[in-house]
Amino acid sequence: MKIKEILVTNDDGIQAKGMRALVDAVSGFGNVSIMAPAFSRSGSSHAITLDKPLKITKVHYDPLREAYICSGTPVDCIKMATGVVGFNPDLVVSGINHGSNSSVSVLYSGTLAAAMEAAIQGYQAIAFSLMDFAPDADFTHCIPIIHKIVQYVLQNPLPPLSLLNVNIPKLPLQDIKGIKVTRQSRGKFVQEFEKRIDPHGRSYYWLCGHLSLNEDPNLLDYDEYYLRQGYVSIMPVQLDMTHYELKKQLENIQW
Amino acid sequence: MKIKEILVTNDDGIQAKGMRALVDAVSGFGNVSIMAPAFSRSGSSHAITLDKPLKITKVHYDPLREAYICSGTPVDCIKMATGVVGFNPDLVVSGINHGSNSSVSVLYSGTLAAAMEAAIQGYQAIAFSLMDFAPDADFTHCIPIIHKIVQYVLQNPLPPLSLLNVNIPKLPLQDIKGIKVTRQSRGKFVQEFEKRIDPHGRSYYWLCGHLSLNEDPNLLDYDEYYLRQGYVSIMPVQLDMTHYELKKQLENIQW
Repeated sequence: MKIKEILVTNDDGIQAKGMRALVDAVSGFGNVSIMAPAFSRSGSSHAITLDKPLKITKVHYDPLREAYICSGTPVDCIKMATGVVGFNPDLVVSGINHGSNSSVSVLYSGTLAAAMEAAIQGYQAIAFSLMDFAPDADFTHCIPIIHKIVQYVLQNPLPPLSLLNVNIPKLPLQDIKGIKVTRQSRGKFVQEFEKRIDPHGRSYYWLCGHLSLNEDPNLLDYDEYYLRQGYVSIMPVQLDMTHYELKKQLENIQW
Repeated sequence: MKIKEILVTNDDGIQAKGMRALVDAVSGFGNVSIMAPAFSRSGSSHAITLDKPLKITKVHYDPLREAYICSGTPVDCIKMATGVVGFNPDLVVSGINHGSNSSVSVLYSGTLAAAMEAAIQGYQAIAFSLMDFAPDADFTHCIPIIHKIVQYVLQNPLPPLSLLNVNIPKLPLQDIKGIKVTRQSRGKFVQEFEKRIDPHGRSYYWLCGHLSLNEDPNLLDYDEYYLRQGYVSIMPVQLDMTHYELKKQLENIQW
């Protein structure tokens, strides 16, 4: 049997504890390589770097893996890994993100965007996030969960142009109630800015805020519902943003 | 009747010719205000700025409008315009982008992401793009097309969490065949990198490449099909990335 090639990336940067945890989690499944941003690129979404050139540098990660840092975004990392270095992975995993990527965060997340880019390029892809923003978060309980999901995907490839968005609660393994397949919750971030005054008397703003859900209480299949109850959420993701119902309506207009 | 409030943004920066054309195109419909990036932020997707604070500055655009530049991304512009300045627009328009935003570019585009963010916040939103990347592109023929679409949306509000992605061919108005309601084409960018050597002998890479479609020739309702035939494309967009078909399949797994 051919040894599986697994590419690991993230948006928290190559030094993140969550990346180390993910490398460890998948290393039993094959040959693991790394291409990650040099620094944190949280909130990068699907951004690509067009206004300056990109550089990559081979770095020492551990004695077992080929690893690179990239000057660009998580999506640039996938493009460089496949288009320049020539990786042709059987699976791309992104994360483990420090912090949840549920609900509308799916649209802002660089972790998820890297996995989405991998799916666009035709690779199997999974994004993993832990609901804990702390740089020293404990990822121990994520390992058996990641094992189970990676094993499933390696044995049962996802359909073209799809990927999985996995969010894991911050709970000891014995308190996790199970794994649920979910949809993206409806919500938005509110109270988003903290205003400060710089030493020269000028205003500036830090983007912060918190997620506010706007969900139907009768349709309890959304990611945040299960995460708050202590389940792992697997949200299957697709890449077609078309609003087909609205398309049908608008086709009847005499433009 | 209350005067309509219209907010204009883009990802090419406040000095772009396409923004001036869009401001002119919508100025007959109400009171137009502007919040745009100071410089080009093409390819920003839905990125938000988390690693540094944001600033805005009131600028002179023309004697008729309140206008601001923002140090962040197009999505930051929408957040700052509504959350800090306090704009509460009846309609947000983004563009006119210098270059097409069809197919998978929907995921990379800052122009579209600004309109998506407006829809997340609960505003009516339309993104406009011209299939011409030139900084001095001719936008004249876009004006009557934008009029028609803006008038429709102001009179027939879009459903919650939806927006329109409008692409306009680079053709004289008399050669445009009409307006078609379309879906996002399946495709990806290929041959993406140009390698160069810097004066110190080190490699660097410019991201470039071109769109390669992977479409079903029997399903001719995709945006690129109609654009290449000379039609304006209106692609209705939604914000839920859930893959519902795959969700059903995965719910039957014993996790």
